[in-house]
Parts: sequence; C-alpha cells; structure tokens
Amino acid sequence: MASQFDAHGRLRHLVTLQGLPRERLVELLDLADSFLTPMGTFPARNRALAGRTVANLFFEPSTRTRASFELAARRLGADVLSLDVSTSSRAKGETLLDTIYTLQAMQVDIFVIRDAQSGVPDFICEHVAPHVAVLNAGESHLNHPTQGLLDVLTMRRHRGSFGDLVVTIAGDIQHSRVARSAHHALTTLGVGELRLVAPPALAPDPAEFHGATLLDNIETGVRDADVVMCLRIQRERMEVSRNPDPQDFYREFGLTPERLALAKPDAIVMHPGPMNRDVEIAGSVADSPQAVIAEQVTHGVAVRMAVMQTVMETLHG
Amino acid sequence: MASQFDAHGRLRHLVTLQGLPRERLVELLDLADSFLTPMGTFPARNRALAGRTVANLFFEPSTRTRASFELAARRLGADVLSLDVSTSSRAKGETLLDTIYTLQAMQVDIFVIRDAQSGVPDFICEHVAPHVAVLNAGESHLNHPTQGLLDVLTMRRHRGSFGDLVVTIAGDIQHSRVARSAHHALTTLGVGELRLVAPPALAPDPAEFHGATLLDNIETGVRDADVVMCLRIQRERMEVSRNPDPQDFYREFGLTPERLALAKPDAIVMHPGPMNRDVEIAGSVADSPQAVIAEQVTHGVAVRMAVMQTVMETLHG
Amino acid sequence: MASQFDAHGRLRHLVTLQGLPRERLVELLDLADSFLTPMGTFPARNRALAGRTVANLFFEPSTRTRASFELAARRLGADVLSLDVSTSSRAKGETLLDTIYTLQAMQVDIFVIRDAQSGVPDFICEHVAPHVAVLNAGESHLNHPTQGLLDVLTMRRHRGSFGDLVVTIAGDIQHSRVARSAHHALTTLGVGELRLVAPPALAPDPAEFHGATLLDNIETGVRDADVVMCLRIQRERMEVSRNPDPQDFYREFGLTPERLALAKPDAIVMHPGPMNRDVEIAGSVADSPQAVIAEQVTHGVAVRMAVMQTVMETLHG
Repeated sequence: MASQFDAHGRLRHLVTLQGLPRERLVELLDLADSFLTPMGTFPARNRALAGRTVANLFFEPSTRTRASFELAARRLGADVLSLDVSTSSRAKGETLLDTIYTLQAMQVDIFVIRDAQSGVPDFICEHVAPHVAVLNAGESHLNHPTQGLLDVLTMRRHRGSFGDLVVTIAGDIQHSRVARSAHHALTTLGVGELRLVAPPALAPDPAEFHGATLLDNIETGVRDADVVMCLRIQRERMEVSRNPDPQDFYREFGLTPERLALAKPDAIVMHPGPMNRDVEIAGSVADSPQAVIAEQVTHGVAVRMAVMQTVMETLHG
Repeated sequence: MASQFDAHGRLRHLVTLQGLPRERLVELLDLADSFLTPMGTFPARNRALAGRTVANLFFEPSTRTRASFELAARRLGADVLSLDVSTSSRAKGETLLDTIYTLQAMQVDIFVIRDAQSGVPDFICEHVAPHVAVLNAGESHLNHPTQGLLDVLTMRRHRGSFGDLVVTIAGDIQHSRVARSAHHALTTLGVGELRLVAPPALAPDPAEFHGATLLDNIETGVRDADVVMCLRIQRERMEVSRNPDPQDFYREFGLTPERLALAKPDAIVMHPGPMNRDVEIAGSVADSPQAVIAEQVTHGVAVRMAVMQTVMETLHG
Repeated sequence: MASQFDAHGRLRHLVTLQGLPRERLVELLDLADSFLTPMGTFPARNRALAGRTVANLFFEPSTRTRASFELAARRLGADVLSLDVSTSSRAKGETLLDTIYTLQAMQVDIFVIRDAQSGVPDFICEHVAPHVAVLNAGESHLNHPTQGLLDVLTMRRHRGSFGDLVVTIAGDIQHSRVARSAHHALTTLGVGELRLVAPPALAPDPAEFHGATLLDNIETGVRDADVVMCLRIQRERMEVSRNPDPQDFYREFGLTPERLALAKPDAIVMHPGPMNRDVEIAGSVADSPQAVIAEQVTHGVAVRMAVMQTVMETLHG
C-alpha cells in the first residue's frame, strides 16, 4: 500500500483519514477555516494552483461532490478537466491505469477519484509519477476523507473542541463511507463519545468502529447529544431484501422534532446530502435553525481547497 | 409570487418580461447593444462577474441556450458550473430546493434555470438568499425572457423604433414561450401591430395575447409586415393527434419566398432556432439576405451579458 | 474542396496532412517542440488565444482527444465550449451547418471537429466565415492530422531525422486514419522506408499508401525497424465477419517482446491509444522502456497548441 505521506511526513495524497496525525488534520482544518468568507461576499480565491491541472474522474455519478471539487480547484486558479467515466467505458478495453497514464502525460497534477470499488485510489497512488497527487472523493463504503474533514470542521466551528463532545451518527452505518471517515477524524481529535445508531440489518461490524458505542435505538442515541448526524438511506446500494421500507425507517429511526428534543438544546443537526426528507430526517428538522447542512456544503469547498493547496505545497513547495 | 425587482425597482431576478417597465427594458437593450462588436474581432469582455459563480441548471436539454449563457458568463469573468440535471435525477430523492440550497452554499451567485414545468423559476426566486439572482432560461410554454430581449434588440437594430412596426409571428403560437415573451416586450415598447398566425389547432387563447391580432392565414399575416418571425414546430411537445404533418404545414403555413414577397421589401426574417428547414421556413428564405437569424444568436450572448451584469449590480452595486 | 491555406500559403484550417508542404509541417513541429516542458514542471502557457473561443464538436465519442484539445486551448488562454453532440441530436432537425452557423454567431473562432463521416471537416471549411478556423480531430478512416503530427514529432525527438528511418505500422491499416495521417507526414518528411503490416482482411488498397511496403508478416515487418507503431484493433468499426479473434490476432500479429527483439535494439514503440493490451501489443512491451506511448500523449497537447496558435496567426496576425 502506497503511503499518503512523503518522507518528511507531509501529505502528498489524501486517501483516508485513518492514521492521519492530529497535527496534519488540524493544519487542514485551520487552512480550510481561513478560506471561509461570509455568504454574499466573494468566496476565497488564490493562485496556489495557477498553471496546474486537476482531473476529476468520477466512476460513480455525483453532481454535488464533483461541483465542490471543481469550484475548489477553479478558486485556486487551476484548469479543471471533468471526465465522464462510467464503469462501462472502462470496460471498453483501456485499463484504468492506462487512462491515468494518458491524463498524467497531459500534465495533470491532481487526480480526484470517486469509485465504487475499494482500493482504487490507493492503487492509483502506487502508480502515479512523483509530482502527481491523488485525492479520494469517495471509495466504496470505506473512505470519503474530504467529507470527514468538512464534518469535523463544522463541529469545531460550532463547539470549539472535541473532548466533551457527544456525537451521534444515525442510519445506514454499515454501508457508509461518511460514517467511517467521521469516525477516523473524531477518534484522532479525541471525541468525548461517538454513538452509532442503526437498525440491526444496517449495523456495522464493531471492529471497524473501535471506541464507538453501537446502538439500535434512536432515542437512546440522541439523548444529550451535541451533534446528530443523519446518513442518507442509500437504496441504490442495498440488496432489495435488506432495503428498509421508508415509512418504517422513518417511524423507527427518522430524526423527528420529538427525538431531536432529547438532544442538548443547542445540538446541531448534520446530513451529508442528498437528503431523503421524511425518511432519515424530518423535513422540518432539516429546515430548523439547528440544522447546519448548508454550512457543511460551504465547508466542503473550503476543505477541498485546503487539501489541494496542501498536497501541491508538498509536491512543489 | 416573488418580485423580480428590489425595493428600488431595480432588476434582481429575470423571470418574465411581463410587467417589466419600459425604462428597465430599454436599459437592458442599450447595455446589450454596447456589447456588440463586429464579427471577426474580439467579443466584448469585462470583469463585472469576476470572482462570481454562475450555475446553469437545465432540466430540459438545450445546447444553444446553455452555450449562450455559458459564454456570456465567461466573458464577464465568472466561473461557470454547467450541471446535467434531468427530471429523473430530481426524482432520485433530493428536492429541487435542496439542490438549489446546496449550490447556493457553494457560493453560487446566479442560477440560470430552464425547466419544462411552469412556475419553477418563480418558486426558486422565493427561496434563494438575498444575494443570489435567478434567471429564467425557458419555462414551459410561458416565458423565455432573454429570447424576448434578443428578439426586440434585433428588431430595434434594423428598424430603430417600434411605433410604426408591423410584426408577424407565425407557427405554433399556442406552445411557444418565444411568442409570449416577444408579445410582452413588444407591448411594452408600443409596437404598431402584432399579428399571430397559426393553424386553428395551434392557435392560442386570445386573452393571453392582449392587443395582438390572431390570424389563420399566412398570406394575410405576412402582407406589408416589417418583421416575420417563424417559430419552430416542436413536435416533441405536442400530442401526436395534433401533430401537423410537416409537408402539410409547409404547404399551408411555411414561409416560402412567394409569401415573404408579400411583406415589405426590406422586411427581416427571424427564427429562434433550431430550424426545421422546409417545414416552418423555406431553406432558401433562411439563407436569404433578409434573414437575420445568425444576428439573433449574436444578440443573445450580448443580452445575457447585459442581464447578468445588471442583476449583479442590483445585488452588490 | 476548400483549401486549408490562405492566399499566402499559410495554414488557416487543418483538415489533412496530405499536401501540407514540408516547410509548413516543420514549422508546426518546431513550434510544438518549443511547448514541451519537463514533466512535473508547469506546462507551457501563453496568451495567443486570449479572448478567443474554441468549440469542440465531437460527433464521435472521445475522451482523450477531446481532453487534449481542451487543455491545449485553455493553455493558450481561450474559452472552450465542449458540446456533447451525437448523430442523433443532429437528426433532431437542425442541420450540421445550422449548428455551425449558430456557434459562429456566438463568436466562436475555432471549431474542432470529430466525425465518423468522411468529408465533414472539409464541408464545414467551405462554409465558415473568413475569420473562423476548422481543425480536423478525426475523420472517418481518412484523416487525423494532429495525430500524424504528434507521431512524427515523437519520432523526430528520438531519431533527429527521417532519411534513414525504417518505420513499421502494424495492425488494422485499412480502417486507420492514424496510419493514413502518419503516411502523409512521413512521405513529406522523406522517410527512409515505411512498412505497413496487416492481415489480408485488414490490408489497405496499396494506391492509398503510395511508396509504402505492404506486408502480412509481423516478423518481416519489424526486422531492423527504428519505429514500431501498433494500431488499435477497432472492434467497434469492423463488420463482425471481419472481426479478428483477439487471441488469434495477438498470436499472429501482436507485438510481443520476441518480435520487438527483431527490431533495432533502440527501436521505439508507439501506439495512438487506447490500447488493447495483449491484443495488438503485449502489456510488457507497452510498459517497457522502449515504449514512448505517454510521450506521444504529451506531444499531442503541444502539437494542438501549435496548430491553434498557427491558424490564429494566419487569421489575425
């Protein structure tokens, strides 16, 4: 497995938050924080990637994450290639590596990769040239590191520190790369308590979430929490037989106003989007002042700018 | 219904030309006019949208209008996100508003919306933040305001004023947002006479086109006209039973050279494109010196630049 | 047929390398050469196309060639429109010329055209305005001039001159625009010997490849060659009955290490991509130090920059 660090321990790829040292993680959050500007003013811009080329290779469809990476790269002055690649086109004969080598030969500096198969970003890291960086934009159920960063940035901006924080993640934990990346980051930041709430059919292997408390009751999970993060029920990824009925799921696990009232009065509500309103989260909760879902999106662009600027400094700084 | 004006009566969204005061309309035409440069020289550029982000959301496919808005935004220095959104993707679970809120959180400044459903641009206006503008790029059969502006700009450049002008619009008036927006603008500008020619099955409700003359004979309609605008027969939008046979339509309503000869000798011929040659318009008429169809396209980019610059000045000027 | 030269013999379109004078060809190669920078440094950039607009119209799908033209245009400062056009959309009613006229009216300066039908780029050249250039990015089995340029640039950088060079092209010569454009360029540059190796079913009409030696044995073809270029077996373009079985093809015509050993010890191996590994070329050969396949891709961007800058100077210089 390729390392995501260079010989001096600086970040040169971003594949996973697992094992990312606290200092590195905090540097990324601090840099991202510096890119936040008030809504309605100009977004932050600089020329850290001027003359550089970023290629978005999304082998899974994604409008929002692709748009976020694209804007982040443009606001750093990069040229952006967004390639429509489906698993089918890969099957046309050219190997994934040959696609990467071709784009690398066009002097692409950063590859942003989303793939439904685990191991793909790491595999690409092993093969790119020394001056090229790879960013994982979503890998199977395993990693979504920029999502993890934006999630903890959002918590930090609302709560300041993590030691006393009770964070509850509810929903389809088993299939969720969002939950795994949040777990990695929160563990590193020394979160007070991490609770994972899922119906038995969607509960994860406890070994994958070391230090977290697994629960199957949403009321217990939410009680006195500082942060409640709902996950998207991803009907498209589940086997039909395990597919919960949306109404049943909402009745048993949906974040209703009544359930949210069990959390701390100033608890924040998060969701990685896109939301199924009135399935995993009540529409009224999503629109309530406690919801910070739009902030998460804003922080996503800032975090992606921070990651791109950081790896580019490692490569050329 | 949200207003497209701010408290000072300045344009902050553009949803419809209906009710747009004459002064506002003329300001837009004057600004667009100032953006026209001779073919073969550089197109006009400025930095009015530098640092701003424009998102094109086309829920109906459109190559030409999307390209026109995209070039207009780029020539004003904006970053442009063009999102492929189909009605099906909207059905995936995320509501339209959640898509808008997500992009708004990425600090999009202007949404350009095309949708087959009526009311969508207005609905979005009601919900965006105070620093965000919405531009209607085609809404059902009701509004296509930038098309209306480019059409009257084209007439003004060829005729100077509207008071003595006879304008004939021929074809599928009933389904045409182009005809409706032209009607709005021409009414405001005090057009001499507006004639609408359509076969009975494609004729509009007269109440929708106050002040216009409805005809079902193309020769009568064209006689002594200054401007003849042919509309695209939109086979894709009509019920099969009402779908005119193209050859029948051409024989009875097509703009042939013989029919055009009934208009004023210096009459101009317009078409919003894409054309069905030898259906609504003879190929030879489309290619004749009287046709100003390519100019309309050029004016379209200028008009879209004018609208974007104007709403941005309202929001931040 | 429209000329690709202006009255002074300067290049104003690029449709074919056939008949391109040696001096013009060498000028393009020299300019492209000046755009090459070491990997890991910044790619060459200038402002030769600042304020200009390039429209990519690919009527055949192509990720790599489109990306190459797009990056070339951006690195010269142009705005780029990449339009998704399929033969089906053309069938919707608008003629190809009306699409071109529409984009031209938006002040597009350069059209980059890929089409499966022969004659299309030339047809467009005949109709565009005097200030607009057309670049052929792949035309049926006939022409792919920027590929031909990048191929001879790659040979020149490795061998310096052409007079003593033995170049072998192997594979589906009959359907290959790559082979035809290489033949045009190599003939003009006075190549020592050009050998074409194909199974009988994929052999070309000898009249189309004047001066070349046609062979049906790969060992004979490769012996003492300086350059071995493998072509992609394009299963998608062949009639099923003529479609060689991949394993049979590899056994009889694939470039294996053993066959490559028959060439000069420092022979270079080329492939236009995308590769079918272990069909026309052994994976180990593609990855060997003799392979210059990634360099070809790099040279492709440089060649496209050189062509765009050259035609723009012809139009406005």
